Amino acid sequence: MNINGKHFRTVWLNENDPQVVNIIDQQILPHRFVIKKLHTVSEVVHAIHDMHVRGAGLIGATAGYGMYLATIEAAQTKSFDEHLNRSAKEIAAARPTAVNLSWAVNRQLTAIDTRKPVSEKIKIARDTAIAIADEDAEHCRRIGMHGVKIIEAISKKKNGAPVNILTHCNAGWLAFVDYGSATSPVYEAYQRGINVHVWVDETRPRNQGAGLTAWELLNHGVPHTVIADNTGGHLMQHGMVDMVITGADRVTRVGDAANKIGTYLKALAAADNNIPFYIALPSSTFDWMISDGLKEIPIETRSADEVKYVEGLCDNEIKKVLITPLGSEAINYGFDVTPARLITGLITERGICNASENDILQLFPEKS
Amino acid sequence: MNINGKHFRTVWLNENDPQVVNIIDQQILPHRFVIKKLHTVSEVVHAIHDMHVRGAGLIGATAGYGMYLATIEAAQTKSFDEHLNRSAKEIAAARPTAVNLSWAVNRQLTAIDTRKPVSEKIKIARDTAIAIADEDAEHCRRIGMHGVKIIEAISKKKNGAPVNILTHCNAGWLAFVDYGSATSPVYEAYQRGINVHVWVDETRPRNQGAGLTAWELLNHGVPHTVIADNTGGHLMQHGMVDMVITGADRVTRVGDAANKIGTYLKALAAADNNIPFYIALPSSTFDWMISDGLKEIPIETRSADEVKYVEGLCDNEIKKVLITPLGSEAINYGFDVTPARLITGLITERGICNASENDILQLFPEKS
Repeated sequence: MNINGKHFRTVWLNENDPQVVNIIDQQILPHRFVIKKLHTVSEVVHAIHDMHVRGAGLIGATAGYGMYLATIEAAQTKSFDEHLNRSAKEIAAARPTAVNLSWAVNRQLTAIDTRKPVSEKIKIARDTAIAIADEDAEHCRRIGMHGVKIIEAISKKKNGAPVNILTHCNAGWLAFVDYGSATSPVYEAYQRGINVHVWVDETRPRNQGAGLTAWELLNHGVPHTVIADNTGGHLMQHGMVDMVITGADRVTRVGDAANKIGTYLKALAAADNNIPFYIALPSSTFDWMISDGLKEIPIETRSADEVKYVEGLCDNEIKKVLITPLGSEAINYGFDVTPARLITGLITERGICNASENDILQLFPEKS
Repeated sequence: MNINGKHFRTVWLNENDPQVVNIIDQQILPHRFVIKKLHTVSEVVHAIHDMHVRGAGLIGATAGYGMYLATIEAAQTKSFDEHLNRSAKEIAAARPTAVNLSWAVNRQLTAIDTRKPVSEKIKIARDTAIAIADEDAEHCRRIGMHGVKIIEAISKKKNGAPVNILTHCNAGWLAFVDYGSATSPVYEAYQRGINVHVWVDETRPRNQGAGLTAWELLNHGVPHTVIADNTGGHLMQHGMVDMVITGADRVTRVGDAANKIGTYLKALAAADNNIPFYIALPSSTFDWMISDGLKEIPIETRSADEVKYVEGLCDNEIKKVLITPLGSEAINYGFDVTPARLITGLITERGICNASENDILQLFPEKS
């Protein structure tokens, strides 16, 4: 999407030196916009591990480019395969829970594993990296084309008055290669001249809404307002929210959706006020092996310091402030599960369906 | 309640100089514990206005002591009544929305308005200030004696395993003179040796939970864990919350309760998981004139900067960090309304009742 009118992706090959991978450094957003150059596998691993890139789609794509750099490095050693496999393991281990990482690495290993000469292998790795990124962007683009119909219908019903969309966390283009999942219908609506306004949950404790979603929308020009996570229920009670769209980290085959902690509370408020609640996701987010989200999806516990300290800009430096007594305990669950019964629909690259096993399988019959 | 084993109230007459009012300075909690001395009416007004004291009960009590200081100052002028009335207006205007402020000032004016000599008036003002504070503490103590029965019953049912109580914002002793409303049953349970543990919502945007409730519980020795406001639903889904108790800012005669923004979301999650949800309040919090909370209780909009900036301790100084892009809009609603249908019961100084007009009026028949 656009930053000050210029189109960017979150990861791409450097225009002047195609052996260098460019990323938008998300660790210092929203306070500074810096394009970071990754020259080596080691730099790719650190970028993923230290969350200079984050979001399921984006770390998959970055891993794909990392494997391309791995072939270049391997070509300079005596044992191409041994070096490549070591790099593959390092990249896949950069973050342990994200399924896209090992998926992208394995796709590259399968593609590169040919009898062709090394120079050909490097070309295959580059083409595969580009293909992974392009597919991610294309899936997100299609989510937007399907989801925009819901926004269009609300806009017509409101005679062009602003359609107020609430979102939680960052399922924006910064979490993917382009467009995003939850934000893609919003960007498409904006593109079509539909009057949209986004309520951005700040999304404590890591503030991905306040920091990343707000920054995306601001730079693309989409009207938005940041709110404390506590606020959505009040807005819904007073007719100030027309629909909710969030992303998801894992969705079961019956439609239970794990997403950033707090999503469930917004789904409850939407249901209590008869407001449609949608989850937008590329189909890679489905976990076809499980049904009961509450029982079967493991919930990550992160550092308590993310609750006790808040990071932000102070005196032109990025600093952390302590907001609790030093001696108080805190706990930090990363996700919660919204039961399918609270979800109006799932917006995927193949279309929109109800959050039920039957309806999901009608869109994805090969998973029956 | 206790700070490092020593009993404190939030406001009291200085032991060595009874013409000085002591307060716990809440503006710098939880990072520093400082007792601030108020010598003049002007200092009382500033302490209330700048939130060195806050909370409905506490600002009422502080206003009572302020009026006592006003009689001392008035005695040194030529026109006692004129000076006293000017002070009364200044104190009542220190914060515009809090009903306890003008209530305490008017109670003092009525008490002082006698034909007695000035020295007698000063004594009356001092006695009335102490009475206002004592009554506030006594009402809160009684809330604890009634509410503890609910905790005791859960504790028995759990065979002494920890009773997990979730609370939102600070309706603790720091918001009153002693005990608090929502926390009073917790302190009483702790006093009786019941195994209790409190989940403390941090309560963005002003973090009264992370800053004040956690500090109270820590200093009194009550086990507690600070959580992001997003977390309560997940805890409830997984059987980790036995009951919710919050305070309230205004409760209608049918039991709709305005409280800190986000309370409604926790009430929805409690209802969805069959967890009892209680509001604890002294009867002064009832607004007997209104019924429909959603339509009739005005909701304060506060500065957007409270959303955009977070205050805390950094390098041993209290600093603010920016967490959004500078150019993004934010909005800050202070309260939301929890409909009576989501409230299991109201814990008052007269006992516990259902959140319905009929049941409330059985406890308060004089309001029929």
